[in-house]
Amino acid sequence: MGNYRIAVLPGDGIGKEVTKGAVEILQAVATRFHHQFEFVYGLIGGEAIDQKGTPLPDETLAMCRQSDAVLLGAVGGPKWDQNPPHLRPEKGLLAIRKEMNLFANLRPVKFYDSLIDSSPLKAEVIQDVDLLIVRELTGGLYFGKPSGRHVEDGEETVVDTLLYKREEIKRIVTTAFELARKRRKKVTSVDKANVLESSRMWREIAEEVARDFPDVKLEHMLVDNAAMQLIRNPKQFDVLVTENMFGDILSDEASMLAGSLGMLPSASLSTSGPSLYEPIHGSAPDIAGQNKANPIAMILSSAMMLRLSFGLHEEAKAIEKAVQQVLTSGYRTADVARNGQRIVSTKEMVNEIKATI
Amino acid sequence: MGNYRIAVLPGDGIGKEVTKGAVEILQAVATRFHHQFEFVYGLIGGEAIDQKGTPLPDETLAMCRQSDAVLLGAVGGPKWDQNPPHLRPEKGLLAIRKEMNLFANLRPVKFYDSLIDSSPLKAEVIQDVDLLIVRELTGGLYFGKPSGRHVEDGEETVVDTLLYKREEIKRIVTTAFELARKRRKKVTSVDKANVLESSRMWREIAEEVARDFPDVKLEHMLVDNAAMQLIRNPKQFDVLVTENMFGDILSDEASMLAGSLGMLPSASLSTSGPSLYEPIHGSAPDIAGQNKANPIAMILSSAMMLRLSFGLHEEAKAIEKAVQQVLTSGYRTADVARNGQRIVSTKEMVNEIKATI
Ligand SMILES: CC(C)[C@H](C(=O)O)[C@@H](O)C(=O)O
Ligand SMILES: CC(C)[C@H](C(=O)O)[C@@H](O)C(=O)O
Repeated sequence: MGNYRIAVLPGDGIGKEVTKGAVEILQAVATRFHHQFEFVYGLIGGEAIDQKGTPLPDETLAMCRQSDAVLLGAVGGPKWDQNPPHLRPEKGLLAIRKEMNLFANLRPVKFYDSLIDSSPLKAEVIQDVDLLIVRELTGGLYFGKPSGRHVEDGEETVVDTLLYKREEIKRIVTTAFELARKRRKKVTSVDKANVLESSRMWREIAEEVARDFPDVKLEHMLVDNAAMQLIRNPKQFDVLVTENMFGDILSDEASMLAGSLGMLPSASLSTSGPSLYEPIHGSAPDIAGQNKANPIAMILSSAMMLRLSFGLHEEAKAIEKAVQQVLTSGYRTADVARNGQRIVSTKEMVNEIKATI
Repeated sequence: MGNYRIAVLPGDGIGKEVTKGAVEILQAVATRFHHQFEFVYGLIGGEAIDQKGTPLPDETLAMCRQSDAVLLGAVGGPKWDQNPPHLRPEKGLLAIRKEMNLFANLRPVKFYDSLIDSSPLKAEVIQDVDLLIVRELTGGLYFGKPSGRHVEDGEETVVDTLLYKREEIKRIVTTAFELARKRRKKVTSVDKANVLESSRMWREIAEEVARDFPDVKLEHMLVDNAAMQLIRNPKQFDVLVTENMFGDILSDEASMLAGSLGMLPSASLSTSGPSLYEPIHGSAPDIAGQNKANPIAMILSSAMMLRLSFGLHEEAKAIEKAVQQVLTSGYRTADVARNGQRIVSTKEMVNEIKATI
């Protein structure tokens, strides 16, 4: 029996609904397995801007640092879309990733037998897909300086910078290899080495890291080809590792293999200190507050937390099995329901999963 | 009856085979429609490196500039993969794009009824897809300076730069609007405005350009979402316009809607001077010289040349109809053949299309 302090940042839109669901599930797990979970709540994103004038208040960050793990819902919404860059909800997300050194974003994509009809892809293409995208999260095109406008030769010019230090590439590639070692022992390093200097250095470092993992196979793939192969033949992949922006694009694309963004959890691991867990979907303003959102991505994110931050493997499995079972029984939120299937609400879905645990 | 001078750059690998096929088709068109096509040949890519010590020899560039249009096969191969950056085949491709100001890369993706089984996507998802990706081709992350390594705080650091001048964004977005006006009148501008400064300027300029096209609808979409929507519901798109690197990734991904990269042509339009036409596939070293490559992407690229550079609409249509007809008759190269279908060679495919014209 363990004692854990979990920081919960519901954020905006459906973030609130799905974190509420995940907390209920975690409480059910605590009861069944005799753990003590303490939940502390903080502001982030649009709501934080409204109440505190900043998308990531200091007290939120301090609270997260003093916790054993962080659960984050989602941020953003049309209300803040016209704000200046430093007052946008997304800035809170980028800031917490950077401030807490959450350099490794793990995005597993798994095939669910019962959702086979929900994917736009043919059954034979997605059957048995089980891949893990390891996205670098605190560097690359998202964070390099300079980033902004200036006048050059009399013309308005804008730049963003894709920047990496050797150590940043090394630690993310090493993480990918460590994870692959516990899986099917294959790493696909995705880059654009035929064009970008940063990709050539990335490839070089990947080769160096690979020498320490003789039991793991390394392959390189160009990002354009990877975007195609993820659809053409996703079963070829075990672990993919890539730059921040590339990982953002490829993981949203890969969500279609699982039928919906609403199914995909993620974990963001820190160099030291607590890790953060969030669904890969956004705040979905169009369905916010309507009790329609799919809570599964968030619930599976909390299962990842139990496993990776607390080492509670059996408990994590209990959640994952419950999700699987509820799907097999035919329960579907609107995003993954097909013609004629009965649609359940967020709360009903949470209750079913809770009951199964 | 017209007189046209066409520069042909076969390049490497299957580039040679498919350009040969396209030239034969163009000769058939010349005969049938009483035109005069003069073909002049030049070196580019790996072969140019081997014979001239540079991936884009001056005489190739001069020849292209003195032509009415350029047909390019593909460049690259394992033989040159370990070369230093300036001696890589891809450098020849990037250099010709830049030197000839080929700023607008048009990549149409069309659904072929007869290939419905070749796509990994479900029939109902891809049926009637007809979209056009307009990729910025001479700026963005591919060409911004600085790009290279340096030492910062004692650590090896690498940067690439995503750079745009206002005018570069304006002209590509304007091109997209002009094209949309002749189609279904919808432009989806793809960016990452919630993170990148360059995307925020892109979005701003797109709004400005839109004011001159009140009859065309503009929508903005984040690149991660676009990567997902292209698979989830590709029918929603008419014209997409985006940054160089984003366009590279999205267009390869979108090729799966048509069943194979081997089906997709492209046109690269210049600010002034001749345009260039190339398939979006690469040199495919694994099947090069085996008479297996799908020549259709290259053949459709030459149809685009007839239409866009020479204004020969009827002739372009004759090629496109012949391709359609040959596919309907069941002819398939290996890349698009499914279980049990008879596979034809590159040459057989070319001959069939030629005979149909
Ligand atoms: C909201 C946005 C800044 C974020 C990102 O681009 O990282 C999101 O798309 C994600 O993938 O977590
Ligand atoms: C070969 C490579 C440099 C090129 C690119 O990235 O532009 C290719 O992928 C393409 O899309 O034409």
